Amino acid sequence: MTLFERLKADAAPQWASYTNHDFVRQLGDASLPQECFRHYLVQDYLFLIQFARAYALGVYKSPTIDDMRQSLEGVKAILDAELDLHVGLCGDWGMSRSDIENAPEETPTMAYTRFVLDAGMSGDLLDLQAALAPCIIGYAEIGARLQDGGADHAGNPYRLWIGEYAGDDYQKVAGGFSCWLDRTAAQVLTENRYPRVLSIFEKACRLESDFWQMGLDAGSR
Amino acid sequence: MTLFERLKADAAPQWASYTNHDFVRQLGDASLPQECFRHYLVQDYLFLIQFARAYALGVYKSPTIDDMRQSLEGVKAILDAELDLHVGLCGDWGMSRSDIENAPEETPTMAYTRFVLDAGMSGDLLDLQAALAPCIIGYAEIGARLQDGGADHAGNPYRLWIGEYAGDDYQKVAGGFSCWLDRTAAQVLTENRYPRVLSIFEKACRLESDFWQMGLDAGSR
Amino acid sequence: MTLFERLKADAAPQWASYTNHDFVRQLGDASLPQECFRHYLVQDYLFLIQFARAYALGVYKSPTIDDMRQSLEGVKAILDAELDLHVGLCGDWGMSRSDIENAPEETPTMAYTRFVLDAGMSGDLLDLQAALAPCIIGYAEIGARLQDGGADHAGNPYRLWIGEYAGDDYQKVAGGFSCWLDRTAAQVLTENRYPRVLSIFEKACRLESDFWQMGLDAGSR
Amino acid sequence: MTLFERLKADAAPQWASYTNHDFVRQLGDASLPQECFRHYLVQDYLFLIQFARAYALGVYKSPTIDDMRQSLEGVKAILDAELDLHVGLCGDWGMSRSDIENAPEETPTMAYTRFVLDAGMSGDLLDLQAALAPCIIGYAEIGARLQDGGADHAGNPYRLWIGEYAGDDYQKVAGGFSCWLDRTAAQVLTENRYPRVLSIFEKACRLESDFWQMGLDAGSR
Repeated sequence: MTLFERLKADAAPQWASYTNHDFVRQLGDASLPQECFRHYLVQDYLFLIQFARAYALGVYKSPTIDDMRQSLEGVKAILDAELDLHVGLCGDWGMSRSDIENAPEETPTMAYTRFVLDAGMSGDLLDLQAALAPCIIGYAEIGARLQDGGADHAGNPYRLWIGEYAGDDYQKVAGGFSCWLDRTAAQVLTENRYPRVLSIFEKACRLESDFWQMGLDAGSR
Repeated sequence: MTLFERLKADAAPQWASYTNHDFVRQLGDASLPQECFRHYLVQDYLFLIQFARAYALGVYKSPTIDDMRQSLEGVKAILDAELDLHVGLCGDWGMSRSDIENAPEETPTMAYTRFVLDAGMSGDLLDLQAALAPCIIGYAEIGARLQDGGADHAGNPYRLWIGEYAGDDYQKVAGGFSCWLDRTAAQVLTENRYPRVLSIFEKACRLESDFWQMGLDAGSR
Repeated sequence: MTLFERLKADAAPQWASYTNHDFVRQLGDASLPQECFRHYLVQDYLFLIQFARAYALGVYKSPTIDDMRQSLEGVKAILDAELDLHVGLCGDWGMSRSDIENAPEETPTMAYTRFVLDAGMSGDLLDLQAALAPCIIGYAEIGARLQDGGADHAGNPYRLWIGEYAGDDYQKVAGGFSCWLDRTAAQVLTENRYPRVLSIFEKACRLESDFWQMGLDAGSR
Repeated sequence: MTLFERLKADAAPQWASYTNHDFVRQLGDASLPQECFRHYLVQDYLFLIQFARAYALGVYKSPTIDDMRQSLEGVKAILDAELDLHVGLCGDWGMSRSDIENAPEETPTMAYTRFVLDAGMSGDLLDLQAALAPCIIGYAEIGARLQDGGADHAGNPYRLWIGEYAGDDYQKVAGGFSCWLDRTAAQVLTENRYPRVLSIFEKACRLESDFWQMGLDAGSR
């Protein structure tokens, strides 16, 4: 059993609320109001900027060169590729770069990202990884499940998003992250410490749910 | 004009939403459901723990011994006095220490506190102070205004809370903080940087409003 | 066996070099040139400022309120008392406050203090404690040994320094720190991690030796 | 006048001691004992690891995406290229990878690197840049001056090292860093703050001198 599997089992209610959130279900059956998705996309851009900072913090906090390089992959993925892809995706949905960059950062965006950064800064690399895991591995699980359920059919306007996270590239990133988490845990995790790591993981799941809910709420404004 | 006055004027909408929030008005006219106040009190306890960490970060980030001592006062106030007072206050409202310590930290609590900690860690002492200012000075303004409006009459169950923040001791703390902010700004604030400091201040005001709203929302659950 | 005892045994050469350094021996037999002691005192003042920052970092990094309060004691001890005592002690040795505050921070002072701060920031509370331990507990051992050897006789100009660290108050501080280290280790220390903690401890011992050597070298300039 | 030029002028003695250090002169006239160079190379490898962490800290502390990307270039340069090049260079000088990785980190290495990391963590991006500047720009100046003086002739065993830092690629890195420093300063530098920035720069120059001296001292052991 990987540490991720253990955390997921012990945080089953929070994990279920996050990965089966109405936002996710509506992505899958194409019923999600497009305004909700647009709102989500913009906040997700602001989220990614902070996640690049969190991965950079991972480089700073890494006890070995291998750990540094693993963290660096995350920084590069975001700053060298994902941000521009995201602007392109937003463009497909009718939003300009300045729409995105001038959008105010909402509370759920700040809550999740700053929680991750603080968990990592105040703890060690394992604490940072535990805070990042729900996002990185959860999106892979969500993408794969939606695709397996046939959600990425031609009529679903969200099929590109689903396909990205269901795709081999992203699945490998998530799998690699889980292995890295296990390597760190093998070095530093004790049973006495486990409840604290679990608490970080649970909070991060809750903050992910709040992030989805922010998207849903945008449809009723 | 102090830096605080300038920030308050430039963030007038956010400041007004925060300091005139319905939660505050209902505290003043005693119409606030007690469940809302109880909920607020517990989250405020969890908030204080993080604020002690933020003041400690201030000690770490201080460029002079005077700044270190100023920050230390904040840490001591919370860890040596306010936390126990808060437990006592919660007790008056029927909540035990374990009720408080086992309460889950809600999203608005995490959002504001981790935002402050990250603003301070990623920037310098001025950034940290700008993130702390809405809480520290805002509560003094709220307390004084409610008291001036006669809100602390014997029939108001919230009069102790109002009296604490309207009292001389707290007013001096807030005044001292504003002076300290000016001293720091005199050293490091440029006009080019001002918009970034203002942005931190505005976000902190928004996060304070969300914190009040969390209290209000507890009444309708 | 406490964690400190284990670290001390495993870092026996580094511990011996530090605690039996010529500077220490010459303090004990009163043969230390006074210029060396004066130089040491001034650098130790600059050192204490950074140690107050390190304890404040401990507050920031503490997982529990008890840990926060334990760290806070260290900040208060330095900022509320030791710095002024140190200025007084320097005065006894003919140095004014401005002599002290204008002294350049030397490389060994920067090396040790910034190493502690970075070990703590990049790791967790245990890493910070492991970096602080050689100073806090080592001075207690040195003071007690010199006093037991009769070094604090009336003819020794360094008897006040020896007496301070041999005294009950300081011995209790050091003993309390060792217990705190054990409490943290009981939560988070694994055998796989132990070599990294030992490495921090060993480096801190080496940097303490370099600090003594800086004092000695001042006599030959 | 760039900020770097101003800092260099105001820290003229420290800059001269660093850039005209005997180690540098002996590199130029090929009189440097090879044992000194070998010792330097190994410590420089350990230094680079910490510098990668410092650049990663720059990503974390960057107020804009452009700043994040500028910092990221530094991390990538070290982790994706320089470390392996360095192992190769050490191999040319007869040292294996395990020789390098098992070498103890010496005090001057820890002093400079941890000073940079702490200056950056406790301050803002400008403080970090001021601490990095002597290394990044100083090596370009040293390389160019030695090459201009003809030091990279075929008989000089250190010509590869000189050529690397005199080369166009490195000169551009250093020039780009100076421009980036100016961009940051244009946002946040005040005259009141300047002495603190200068103090960081001066200390970093001193710590660079100590790093050269460590290399020289290795020849007399």
